[in-house]
Amino acid sequence: MSLLDQVRFPADIRALPREQLRQLADEVRDRHIDVVAQKGGHFGASLGVVELTVALHRVYDTPRDQLVWDTGHQAYIHKILTGRNEQLPTIRTRGGLAPFLRRDESEYDAFGAGHAATSISAAWGMAVGRDLKGADFDVVAIIGDGSMGCGLAYEALNNAGHKSNDFTVVLNDNDMSIGPAVGALNKYLTSMVTNPAYNKVRDVVKDVLHRAPRSLGHLMEEVAGKLEDGVKHMLTPGMLFEALGFRYIGPVDGHDLDELVDTFSRVRQMSGPILVHVLTQKGKGFHLAEDDPWTWHAASPFDKISGAAHAKKAGRPRYQKVFGKGLVELADEDPRIVAITAAMPDGTSTDLFSRAHADRYFDVGIAEGHGVTFAAGLATQGIKPVVAIYSTFLQRGYDNIVHDVALQDLPVVFGMDRAGIAGADGPTHNGAFDIAYMLAVPNMTVTAGKNGTETLALLRAGLQHEEGPFCLRWPRDSVPDEVPSALTIEPTPHASWEVLRRGSDLCILAVGTMVLPAIDAAQELAARGIEATVVNCRYLKPYDRAVFEEVVSAHDRILTIEEGTVTNGFGAFMTREITAFRRGAALHIETLGLPDDFIEHGGRGELLADLGLDAAGIARSARALTDGAATGRSARETA
Amino acid sequence: MSLLDQVRFPADIRALPREQLRQLADEVRDRHIDVVAQKGGHFGASLGVVELTVALHRVYDTPRDQLVWDTGHQAYIHKILTGRNEQLPTIRTRGGLAPFLRRDESEYDAFGAGHAATSISAAWGMAVGRDLKGADFDVVAIIGDGSMGCGLAYEALNNAGHKSNDFTVVLNDNDMSIGPAVGALNKYLTSMVTNPAYNKVRDVVKDVLHRAPRSLGHLMEEVAGKLEDGVKHMLTPGMLFEALGFRYIGPVDGHDLDELVDTFSRVRQMSGPILVHVLTQKGKGFHLAEDDPWTWHAASPFDKISGAAHAKKAGRPRYQKVFGKGLVELADEDPRIVAITAAMPDGTSTDLFSRAHADRYFDVGIAEGHGVTFAAGLATQGIKPVVAIYSTFLQRGYDNIVHDVALQDLPVVFGMDRAGIAGADGPTHNGAFDIAYMLAVPNMTVTAGKNGTETLALLRAGLQHEEGPFCLRWPRDSVPDEVPSALTIEPTPHASWEVLRRGSDLCILAVGTMVLPAIDAAQELAARGIEATVVNCRYLKPYDRAVFEEVVSAHDRILTIEEGTVTNGFGAFMTREITAFRRGAALHIETLGLPDDFIEHGGRGELLADLGLDAAGIARSARALTDGAATGRSARETA
Repeated sequence: MSLLDQVRFPADIRALPREQLRQLADEVRDRHIDVVAQKGGHFGASLGVVELTVALHRVYDTPRDQLVWDTGHQAYIHKILTGRNEQLPTIRTRGGLAPFLRRDESEYDAFGAGHAATSISAAWGMAVGRDLKGADFDVVAIIGDGSMGCGLAYEALNNAGHKSNDFTVVLNDNDMSIGPAVGALNKYLTSMVTNPAYNKVRDVVKDVLHRAPRSLGHLMEEVAGKLEDGVKHMLTPGMLFEALGFRYIGPVDGHDLDELVDTFSRVRQMSGPILVHVLTQKGKGFHLAEDDPWTWHAASPFDKISGAAHAKKAGRPRYQKVFGKGLVELADEDPRIVAITAAMPDGTSTDLFSRAHADRYFDVGIAEGHGVTFAAGLATQGIKPVVAIYSTFLQRGYDNIVHDVALQDLPVVFGMDRAGIAGADGPTHNGAFDIAYMLAVPNMTVTAGKNGTETLALLRAGLQHEEGPFCLRWPRDSVPDEVPSALTIEPTPHASWEVLRRGSDLCILAVGTMVLPAIDAAQELAARGIEATVVNCRYLKPYDRAVFEEVVSAHDRILTIEEGTVTNGFGAFMTREITAFRRGAALHIETLGLPDDFIEHGGRGELLADLGLDAAGIARSARALTDGAATGRSARETA
Repeated sequence: MSLLDQVRFPADIRALPREQLRQLADEVRDRHIDVVAQKGGHFGASLGVVELTVALHRVYDTPRDQLVWDTGHQAYIHKILTGRNEQLPTIRTRGGLAPFLRRDESEYDAFGAGHAATSISAAWGMAVGRDLKGADFDVVAIIGDGSMGCGLAYEALNNAGHKSNDFTVVLNDNDMSIGPAVGALNKYLTSMVTNPAYNKVRDVVKDVLHRAPRSLGHLMEEVAGKLEDGVKHMLTPGMLFEALGFRYIGPVDGHDLDELVDTFSRVRQMSGPILVHVLTQKGKGFHLAEDDPWTWHAASPFDKISGAAHAKKAGRPRYQKVFGKGLVELADEDPRIVAITAAMPDGTSTDLFSRAHADRYFDVGIAEGHGVTFAAGLATQGIKPVVAIYSTFLQRGYDNIVHDVALQDLPVVFGMDRAGIAGADGPTHNGAFDIAYMLAVPNMTVTAGKNGTETLALLRAGLQHEEGPFCLRWPRDSVPDEVPSALTIEPTPHASWEVLRRGSDLCILAVGTMVLPAIDAAQELAARGIEATVVNCRYLKPYDRAVFEEVVSAHDRILTIEEGTVTNGFGAFMTREITAFRRGAALHIETLGLPDDFIEHGGRGELLADLGLDAAGIARSARALTDGAATGRSARETA
């Protein structure tokens, strides 16, 4: 019988003889590899924290003591050891385990995660809250070195470091974030840990201090005391953290269970803000992932021996690839184009750009706000920055978009990846709000293409648009079309719509990913004798006023559809415009989009279908609208 | 003839004999004091950078070399010396000089400012852009120590510090931000600079190293070399910045013109990222401001000798005071209530809370994102955090609101100060977007009170609402009512509206500050025979469905009005709800609010009147709507 059959909860880990911890770690690592090989999922980060996770649950009294894992893509081991082993194969599927951490999934998930670098702030709040209410438990944040480049982590350290509340931060230093870690902090950590000169000097200095001539008396003693501190700072990577008020412990070998258990046992007795620096290897225990941790950050189902991915059905490329490839081609021709991303080189396919135009490629790390303001600075110099960031992460740069870019009307292009339903990654990764938050920004041109070719046409238009900022969004999906070279694609005319179909019964105003389903729906409707006008509203703001007036004049029944929150997205914006233009007319308007709720994880297609955002759903809504059933509630709302 | 009459532009400073710089500094300081004493404005920060500003324009070839001032409240001296001396008395008034920095005001304003901590990111973008295009000029960011606690500044340092582009950051260290600086970094800077032990130890160590016994040979030499570095780091505040890859120069006396000019002349010849640490005194040269720099951050017109403010007309307190006082009273009764702000203790009147309940008061510094996630952590422990941040600055915490608070449905109350037109502070400080960005957030209750009493009623309701996050907004204005103790005010029922007046000709749905003007407008309309229903829509989301159905059923003519962007604010949201509810009805809907543009600085009252957001403007719009002039465009849009 395997240990993992007996160890279902952390209390079981604490009941094991210490010498069995190694076996447990090995078993849980194997289990993780088995499940991800079979089902796919986040892979390398969890392999790196097997021993760390076992040690933390061994030493701390979870869930009474609270572990706050950052980001959550490394939490598979934690899930296995906190009562969710059997369900692990359901992870990322509809109704199955969440991809990251969720308070409503387990009492062991002390704080939800998904976006990076929130753990220190949240855990610090929990520690302060504990002390305010006079409770007594430990709070431990576990954060990767990549997240440490994020301003949020720094703000939290800076805030916590000058207080005395008990609080522990574990720096899980694997020299990686999702992609290779960037930035000065990372360089610093690496040099401190790896430079053998430092270790040598440490020994020498100890020796010298020991042999210091007596004649200098207590003067020397005083100096030695000071020096020990100074030297300690110089010789450890802790200098930075001690400067911020944390007591630094480390570095600790993150795969040595004994060292980890001993260290945390000691740390648990200490007081005040403490930072424990643990060195781990992403992908540890699976040789391919050890050698190429970037590629193995997440995996599709694969063969455990060869590492070969199980055959995927061949298909068209993803939008991100089309964007990444197109941007490289455009940059080949225009040396002013630069690409900026925030630790998403792979996710936004700007890794292609990094290889083609390394000198014009800027991965700023997990620092979306800085990336946006940096782009604004570049734009003042006549450079053409394209900022490629996931829709949901760009929320971190919202003030920078408003204050540094839009207010100064600087020509920065924003490529918003994973706009709409992100699928298996769930609510933290859905891009549900970008239409709403971008429409509100003055001077911003807001766009979305109906397919890959039009996405590149909009990208070209954005790069030509020198009067102010420009954003385009695309989904986490494959393109529906064969996409030619970006250089052969004409830019879309500014603020233009495209009437794709004309009918007399209703008008569908569709945005981005909803345009082709709207066309399909229109064909289905035509088969039932309902003729729809379908407009591709590729410019959401400013919109095509001439086409708007034409189609809105011709129709009393209008359906809007977008893959974004419907509360105050394009549909609401259009409803206001339509009712103003046709004041006093008897209108039937229906607005479709994402409901005012967080959408759970699942397959992108199945989620969209459920929300009525596919051809069948659009056709249903259109039929309800053309039935003229003015019951006072829309079909969707009463459904 | 004064020097300042001859020195109109930086080139004139560079043409002066060096020994006249002191006189110029004195004159420009006097000029600043004179103007602010007469007209009011930001005061202390500019006094602290008189010599720094003179020295920078002396050494650098502005505007060819680019100075990027952070925040901009310290830029009066810079404005005086860059061709804007005569206009200085117009600052902050309509059509006059901008309160902060603006690219479109002067070629010497290299990058706009208003929000804090953007300068390093922007200047780094400019430096990289310069090198990409092969140009040759210097870029210098000047940032205060308060802004250094902001994650954005750290992200920028971390990004720039591992590159080799020429780039200079001036840390203007006055041990203050807008309020007293907080956080570990600040503590660290202060201790390094002020602790005499460090200076003593430095000398001693030099001495010891010098006397090291020869017998140790070159072993000791090697160690000494390492030690010198280590000791240097330990003994200077530069450690932290050198760890981030910057070459550290300083500290420099920021009021010693010779030292400043010499230092910058030397720095200008150096290459790579450099940080110059300048020590200044906020309020320098005006004794009252030196003694109490916090109070003198900004000033109303005052007597230059006594410092006494010129008599202000007595009036009702500001909303912020009503909020701050009310929150203290509520916290007196409920120990779970805590207050969080982000370097806005005075601006949000949470300074009252800091004095009454110091142990439950958290000023996290210029770190809005951290403040929000910290609040989420507190909320998990049953604490009731109230986050008081200006509407426009809360944009920096948008992702934290979505990801850390709303997604987990944690009960955090957001008090959004300066929502709507901020007046003299201009477009960087207007709170134009909070309604739009908050409406989009699932689980968020969005509210605004019509007066001070209702603001407190909503605050009480928010603190009682344990099902999820809650926000309330208030303007930068005086309350219109006599406000009783918060403890005597009943909480508003959840999701309730209030019908203040009933009429048959139109329905006005008004939000927050627009409710009382709507009542006034209704009275004016009544005098002309037009009877309006007026509804106080104090809950924007979720709204009062019963009242909504009642009033919207009864009216075909509906006017919405809010002090926020009209593009996709409450009016657009309501228009969508109304047209869905009354599908097929011939409706006349008009939505009033802030136009889709950045609103310039000026008096709050005059700006609102201009935008039609006062009683007269509302009445005009209502008349146009009830004229039934279905011309196809609203009155406002054709005006």
